[in-house]
Amino acid sequence: MNDVAWIAVDWGTSHLRAWLMRFDGRVVEQRQSDSGMADLTPDGFEPALQALCADVLPRPVLACGMVGSKQGWAEAPYAEVPCMPFNISLVVTAVTEQPTLSVRILSGIKQSNPADVMRGEETQIAGYLSVNPEFDGVICLPGTHTKWVHVSAGEIVSFRTAMTGELFGLLSTQSVLRHSMGKGWDASAFLDSVDTAISRPESLAAELFSLRAKNLLNELDNDAARSRLSGLLIGAELASMRPYWLGQKVAIIGVHNLSQAYEAALIVQRVPVVTAFAEDMTVSGLVAAYSHIYGDRV
Amino acid sequence: MNDVAWIAVDWGTSHLRAWLMRFDGRVVEQRQSDSGMADLTPDGFEPALQALCADVLPRPVLACGMVGSKQGWAEAPYAEVPCMPFNISLVVTAVTEQPTLSVRILSGIKQSNPADVMRGEETQIAGYLSVNPEFDGVICLPGTHTKWVHVSAGEIVSFRTAMTGELFGLLSTQSVLRHSMGKGWDASAFLDSVDTAISRPESLAAELFSLRAKNLLNELDNDAARSRLSGLLIGAELASMRPYWLGQKVAIIGVHNLSQAYEAALIVQRVPVVTAFAEDMTVSGLVAAYSHIYGDRV
Repeated sequence: MNDVAWIAVDWGTSHLRAWLMRFDGRVVEQRQSDSGMADLTPDGFEPALQALCADVLPRPVLACGMVGSKQGWAEAPYAEVPCMPFNISLVVTAVTEQPTLSVRILSGIKQSNPADVMRGEETQIAGYLSVNPEFDGVICLPGTHTKWVHVSAGEIVSFRTAMTGELFGLLSTQSVLRHSMGKGWDASAFLDSVDTAISRPESLAAELFSLRAKNLLNELDNDAARSRLSGLLIGAELASMRPYWLGQKVAIIGVHNLSQAYEAALIVQRVPVVTAFAEDMTVSGLVAAYSHIYGDRV
Repeated sequence: MNDVAWIAVDWGTSHLRAWLMRFDGRVVEQRQSDSGMADLTPDGFEPALQALCADVLPRPVLACGMVGSKQGWAEAPYAEVPCMPFNISLVVTAVTEQPTLSVRILSGIKQSNPADVMRGEETQIAGYLSVNPEFDGVICLPGTHTKWVHVSAGEIVSFRTAMTGELFGLLSTQSVLRHSMGKGWDASAFLDSVDTAISRPESLAAELFSLRAKNLLNELDNDAARSRLSGLLIGAELASMRPYWLGQKVAIIGVHNLSQAYEAALIVQRVPVVTAFAEDMTVSGLVAAYSHIYGDRV
């Protein structure tokens, strides 16, 4: 562990991920725990970090995500669009019990009209721009709360959020539809439902229960039902986000399966797509931020 | 209890309601428990009924609702539209441990295209038609799974279901929006969001998260946020169900607050509305069915 210079942290609602970093920006080791922000009281953050990284503390920690929200460790203000994804003047330092500990938290981004916020995704965008400095266009970050972000000249110009992942989670595991959900994937059922929701977004409310009814009447198997639920929700999101992707190139930053689903849906709409892996972009973003904050020490 | 002739039962997913009935169709007493179908195994139905009505059993029992589903006490088949709301040839008798017990369960209704099902609402419709025999038009039954039903010449012609109540329950108590939910009601915020969702149904996916963002940015108070969530979901439902209500008279059968919300939303769309109380219609429907089954004994 001697070559660990600092610790990059992505601290979200449901997870805590840490990367032990060398000065040159390489990852020595990745660690994670399920001590997400949602499960922690304000005095629980430092012990959770210690539990994961005791052997490499008190090396400096740079964190992004919900750890900087009002319910987090220290509230980092929002920068307002249009702005760079990383805003050094808004970085906050967390108060720690252990005096030698240095924990800095990156700010989020807000937009007034229409109202929207992000925390964590801006760091992935910073990472993407550090790898693709000439990028100009739209970035889609699928997840619990999928973000669509218009990026131009290195700045976040505007963005919007759809709760698609959270809706899918609730409907597939807690609603009446849970009785009809398989584990497999039916790509053509998915794309067919994406098309339904994009072309007739008003049909969504009735189409959702139809999945249950068709399944009860033996007209739809469980794998297709799950794929159709995903397709209806992603299609409804694409209908909502049409101004973001229509006539644009889209870079998708996400995890493999989910990125693939969005890519498939967008390709049918003749949208050119490139993809990047979310975790890589988070690390790249934290490395870029670290080099800004600590300057020549990187 | 000597004048109790039979027991009318509405046995849904989450509740068991029983009315002790006289021969003349009057209610002697109403009882209920939370022994809903979802919490019972097949051998749990008879004890649950005994627990609620031991003192008046083995008087004949006539039941409607999810008790007749595949996961219920005895599976009552679906009648297929177009059909009467009550279909005597499809009534099933539950197998009971207690040989003197007589429990009959009413059938549900299904529709093949588009696929849809109902269990319980058909009895409320039968009740409404027994009170309003000349009714021709559309009946809306708001609830966990809101039904829109086209009724003509005493028959259910077609129907569709929206999971609006279930969606509202999940989003308001289990999603990130739960942090922004008040207990009060803001009628103008509700109607404004109904209008947004009806006129731009494609906006739903982004509008949902905006409630959270506006609340975080202090642009929306918690009562208005809850009313807007309800308005967006009911508006999305109305957009989906437009062929049912456009240019029609609508009878709403529901509980007070929910019926009022639907009534307010429909009146803005210049739809004439009448309302009836769900529980009354359930009892009327069970009385009408009982008189069909037992003939002159009523």
